[in-house]
Amino acid sequence: MSESVVERRIIQRRGNSHGQAEDMLVVEEPMEIRLGDTAIAVVMRTPDDDEDLIRGFALTEGIALAPEEISAVEDLGEGRYRLIIREGTTVDPEQFRRNLYATSSCGVCGKASIDAVRISARSATPGPIISPAVVLSLPDAIAAEQTCFDLTGGIHAAAAFTVSGELVAAREDIGRHNAVDKVIGAIGDNGWPVTHPILFVSGRVSFEIVQKAAVAGFVIVAGVSAVSSLGADLAEELGLTAIGFVRGDGFNVYTHPERIGMTP
Amino acid sequence: MSESVVERRIIQRRGNSHGQAEDMLVVEEPMEIRLGDTAIAVVMRTPDDDEDLIRGFALTEGIALAPEEISAVEDLGEGRYRLIIREGTTVDPEQFRRNLYATSSCGVCGKASIDAVRISARSATPGPIISPAVVLSLPDAIAAEQTCFDLTGGIHAAAAFTVSGELVAAREDIGRHNAVDKVIGAIGDNGWPVTHPILFVSGRVSFEIVQKAAVAGFVIVAGVSAVSSLGADLAEELGLTAIGFVRGDGFNVYTHPERIGMTP
Repeated sequence: MSESVVERRIIQRRGNSHGQAEDMLVVEEPMEIRLGDTAIAVVMRTPDDDEDLIRGFALTEGIALAPEEISAVEDLGEGRYRLIIREGTTVDPEQFRRNLYATSSCGVCGKASIDAVRISARSATPGPIISPAVVLSLPDAIAAEQTCFDLTGGIHAAAAFTVSGELVAAREDIGRHNAVDKVIGAIGDNGWPVTHPILFVSGRVSFEIVQKAAVAGFVIVAGVSAVSSLGADLAEELGLTAIGFVRGDGFNVYTHPERIGMTP
Repeated sequence: MSESVVERRIIQRRGNSHGQAEDMLVVEEPMEIRLGDTAIAVVMRTPDDDEDLIRGFALTEGIALAPEEISAVEDLGEGRYRLIIREGTTVDPEQFRRNLYATSSCGVCGKASIDAVRISARSATPGPIISPAVVLSLPDAIAAEQTCFDLTGGIHAAAAFTVSGELVAAREDIGRHNAVDKVIGAIGDNGWPVTHPILFVSGRVSFEIVQKAAVAGFVIVAGVSAVSSLGADLAEELGLTAIGFVRGDGFNVYTHPERIGMTP
């Protein structure tokens, strides 16, 4: 059984009766990321693809500006990892230690001030154009990869797709943003910014999802659920196409519909 | 229209055609919390009940140990607030500034080390016992309060209930944990720890939801979606009843089923 799922004996209530059952739970465990000897972040994550998560986190939070700046991820045991930055690249752990603040929600990986929220996200160039049929194919394509979700019903997924809707990489995590960081960590080594246009998430398209997508180089961000106001604002500003409620035979396009061949 | 919802012109794709439509989006905006002149957190939140959120955040993160330690919440404009702690209470902003780390997901409001994760959560005393019918009534009760969800489909809710299933307070936010902090901030003034047994959330019961519930004094934490492994572990350890998948005519009890009149 995968490390990301654990079995637990529970009591199921159905109708007027109840009985014991074995249930599968998604594993949630803290992971500490160190730069040198300084702990810069504790992230609650699902312990699969830890190295992808750390690489993606380092990239989308601006700790490393490109995959080649990350020399290695050292496993220190018990959920502790050390991020090794390439020699010659200057990273001051205190900078991130001071600037990474708390978030009490699926939120921005806190920055020291509101003005600093829009970190290092680049503006997208026009194109490519993808067909509505590709958008509609994304939920089934990601569902086919969501092995943990089938077991636990409690995990998020993110995936990168090509212009023709071919899956490049899919990852799961209890945290929506972790799943995105894992995908970015997994594919970032094959070209940075990433050369695939579509990031698809199993949940909502919020500000930080758009921010992470933009930093990585995706130009289309689509999700099964709603797009938030700030997610749409940021996508508009950075030239990304934001798509929500991809379900059944339809979806909603919030920004830059020209990439789906639609006039605004 | 509420501050927490904003209208946006979008393009809807349905079947083989698409057209313009007005859609309601849940508002997501950053909020900065200051202690004195030090920014201790930037939280992405839905701008409704800001003061409830700040009070609840201060309580569940251990910045204030009881509601009476919070003298006031000062609105500095543009999403910035100052938390005023009662004179005579010593709070070192740097302590929280150093110890509040990033989370890249719905996660723990990062602590400086994994060992420090289980902050200030108390163990629950036995009782009370509630009927399964009360558990089953919670989704409809919270849905009736979810005004924004009806409009946007993209917002989380949390609510406190009495032993007989009466609603005490319900709050919404784009962040799952923010909704919980808002509820705790709203009812904390009427007795601390809170005197109501049930916290219900519209989503998953993860570690931090259980941690916040325990800090506040709830003894039953129930949700519409899955319970995470660490959520169940913490509930077990602290003596809380964790309930997941409250849907239709059933639910799953993960820990301490005796409070639902069931033998483990």
